[in-house]
Amino acid sequence: MDREEFRRRAHELVDWMADYLEGVEAYPVRAQVAPGETKAKLPAGPPAKAEPFEEIFADFERDLLPGMTHWQHPSFFAYFPANSSPPSVLAEMLTATLAAQCMLWQTSPAASELEDRVLDWLVGMLGLPADFKGVIQDSATSATLAAILTAREQATDWQANEIGLAALGAKGTELVVYCSTEAHSSIEKGLKVAGLGRRNLRRIETGEDFAMRPEALAAAITEDRAAGRTPACLVASIGGTGTGAMDPLRPLGEICRREGLWLHVDAAWAGSALILPEERGLLDGIELADSFVFNPHKWLFTNFDCTAFFLRDVAALERTLALVPEYLKSPEGRAVTDYQNWSVPLGRRFRALKLWFVIRAYGVEGLRAMLRRHLTWARELHDQVAAAEDFEILSPLRLSLFSFRYHPAHGRAGGDLDEARLEALNTRLLECLNDSGKLYLTQNRVRGRYAIRFVVGQTSTQRRPVLAAWEIIQASARGLEP
Amino acid sequence: MDREEFRRRAHELVDWMADYLEGVEAYPVRAQVAPGETKAKLPAGPPAKAEPFEEIFADFERDLLPGMTHWQHPSFFAYFPANSSPPSVLAEMLTATLAAQCMLWQTSPAASELEDRVLDWLVGMLGLPADFKGVIQDSATSATLAAILTAREQATDWQANEIGLAALGAKGTELVVYCSTEAHSSIEKGLKVAGLGRRNLRRIETGEDFAMRPEALAAAITEDRAAGRTPACLVASIGGTGTGAMDPLRPLGEICRREGLWLHVDAAWAGSALILPEERGLLDGIELADSFVFNPHKWLFTNFDCTAFFLRDVAALERTLALVPEYLKSPEGRAVTDYQNWSVPLGRRFRALKLWFVIRAYGVEGLRAMLRRHLTWARELHDQVAAAEDFEILSPLRLSLFSFRYHPAHGRAGGDLDEARLEALNTRLLECLNDSGKLYLTQNRVRGRYAIRFVVGQTSTQRRPVLAAWEIIQASARGLEP
Repeated sequence: MDREEFRRRAHELVDWMADYLEGVEAYPVRAQVAPGETKAKLPAGPPAKAEPFEEIFADFERDLLPGMTHWQHPSFFAYFPANSSPPSVLAEMLTATLAAQCMLWQTSPAASELEDRVLDWLVGMLGLPADFKGVIQDSATSATLAAILTAREQATDWQANEIGLAALGAKGTELVVYCSTEAHSSIEKGLKVAGLGRRNLRRIETGEDFAMRPEALAAAITEDRAAGRTPACLVASIGGTGTGAMDPLRPLGEICRREGLWLHVDAAWAGSALILPEERGLLDGIELADSFVFNPHKWLFTNFDCTAFFLRDVAALERTLALVPEYLKSPEGRAVTDYQNWSVPLGRRFRALKLWFVIRAYGVEGLRAMLRRHLTWARELHDQVAAAEDFEILSPLRLSLFSFRYHPAHGRAGGDLDEARLEALNTRLLECLNDSGKLYLTQNRVRGRYAIRFVVGQTSTQRRPVLAAWEIIQASARGLEP
Repeated sequence: MDREEFRRRAHELVDWMADYLEGVEAYPVRAQVAPGETKAKLPAGPPAKAEPFEEIFADFERDLLPGMTHWQHPSFFAYFPANSSPPSVLAEMLTATLAAQCMLWQTSPAASELEDRVLDWLVGMLGLPADFKGVIQDSATSATLAAILTAREQATDWQANEIGLAALGAKGTELVVYCSTEAHSSIEKGLKVAGLGRRNLRRIETGEDFAMRPEALAAAITEDRAAGRTPACLVASIGGTGTGAMDPLRPLGEICRREGLWLHVDAAWAGSALILPEERGLLDGIELADSFVFNPHKWLFTNFDCTAFFLRDVAALERTLALVPEYLKSPEGRAVTDYQNWSVPLGRRFRALKLWFVIRAYGVEGLRAMLRRHLTWARELHDQVAAAEDFEILSPLRLSLFSFRYHPAHGRAGGDLDEARLEALNTRLLECLNDSGKLYLTQNRVRGRYAIRFVVGQTSTQRRPVLAAWEIIQASARGLEP
């Protein structure tokens, strides 16, 4: 493909892209294909000769597109959104064209310094401690892993990296990490990867409001110390994935300070909402934290991958992850930041550009206005569900997230269904909703009960699709045989 | 930014992108800015109000572009290339627009099945064992980490994930990983992350040809067993980063089979060349390997990130990394592949699309022709350097990579410079070359001696820039005071 064909094809794609974003609502949200259906359409082997781009693109439209779940659909209320926006897509086009490796300062100085600057902006926008420094990582899983690794090194006097955990174990050191029962699975993954073992993850009980109980944390730490284990790290959640649980940072942070634990805050989804001054109370006590992660690729209109990871003690992170063979040495030395020393992968895309485009194209006020609309619509929907006699809220509204279930004859004497029948009923309801292609939702389990999650956060959503979802949910539910 | 503005701006960007790729040779290869220079141009805080796109883009051109190192420049001969191509950029435009999360089959069935299919294509194209299955990861570092973790679990009877290495260590188990002295730093990083400790990485000596000596590996394994340690994994290099070292897979694989070690093959850069039937000999013995990684984002014309990781025992990988909380459960169960279970990060971009575009747009024969041109030009350059009296080859040509140094009066009685003066001279030569902006090269150390690496692999390079590099190198070197 020569340069002129590239130019022509790229213009064609731009029209397709703009049409797609304008018309995405016409597609079913969740792909309506069966397992294996797409693969069966794809040739078993690669072509020997070059194929014309028309053909490749026609196959994309015919064979792949029907098998895609449309994450940018305004009726996408599943998981957390992986939201994007026009300025972010524009930046991705430039990033793909420059195709620079941003592993060292020298390999892309402007990318490195823009990342530094834009993450400083986020520190201010979210109200994080002014001495936090940030880095873009691929996912919250990777950032939480980096936090756990740094905590592991600190707790072993920087010996785990050197001699390994087995040698330390021979001397009796076993590290423990704490989180709540509502915390994300990435924490368990982090323990497994870091060699700490998942039996050393303590899932601390939560109160009525799904928030970690500080006294239960303190008791668990005491118990672990008594058993000869070493409490190393607490991962607090601001906006847990299932129920949006908000752990109380101040009392938890005080325990961490007293006990010498690394405090990592996982605000993967909810972090974006902290740009709203009225939500800043969630961060009370953040100055007691050591690190913090949130995903602009979830709810700040920036394409995946864009995880923002912040911490105070950058030297501790570098001491944990830096590794500089001859061919990665920088003559600039300490005068510059080589971000490869701040993350597990070595290679890094130019990801700061999209964040910079998004923040500038909307302005902080514009971003706030978009988030406030999501919060308003979610509140409106939540209140309607709560008011319906045959529905039940299982986890209350947290920002733009809540869980519910269909529960006909709820609370009416004699008419109540048992838990097994409610689960079967709601499983069928969710299948029926997602199969309709009209909206997309995810299941959850709230204190053991099967629930349907609803989260508002897609860039292109509006009041209309949110309220239409409620009409569809009611009609589908009431059409089911209990 | 509304949809119509997006369409207009995207068309403008396409023209800029096409112009950039056509004219990239006009830029200095390595950015010519000082540390802090770019950051000083960027405002300390974010704008409150939305800014017009013209202004954002003008700032990109004025403030950022001069600070970028141009990885797509035809005279980029540094590190390994992060090469790209027109069809790959087109695919990235679509990927950014769909902005789908490809973590589960259900969240993007077509992406999942395309990944499955295209990685099967690569198995055939490279001549990997037919029972290998592949997954796209972000970087070779992450793939090698996944291999080390799987080896760790296998060697601990799947207990490290459960109870942690410290508890195992108390029973005397300490795992050892082997690689050659030429292997990549990511292996050491993998040991550190996995909690194995870098003292348990054995760097096995190499022969004259920089390849690992099998008898040295066997001796090291014996010694570790005698000391009560557990040999767990060998990482063999096909195309080491420094010298392009090629470890002999067959004798190494036989040792691994006999001793029960996981054999992981790191062909991050050189793997792409295995699509050439004439280079397939490098893979002799690959059927003895358990896993294999290479980066299409290095030398197969596909944008970063695109690491292809293959292994035979997928169940072992899933057993190591899978973690499925309620909200990630798939009703499809075992009928589908949820790739989040095959890698550390949970979120995943739609990365198979660009690989599919690239393979189809060039065809296997087209890709081979491009690689063969790189090999031919590298050979031509290497032979000229080898023939020059005042230059010395320090590591011989491996595919398209070799290392050299300027060594005036080399071998002439009385005129020889000592090692310290040669290092100083070549350090200055490299600085002078990279400062010129005319080409970009990386330093290396070959058996302790400072060397300059040269690698041909940039998509847009041609015979002319490769041979011009040699003219510039000679002129610069001969202009230096020894």
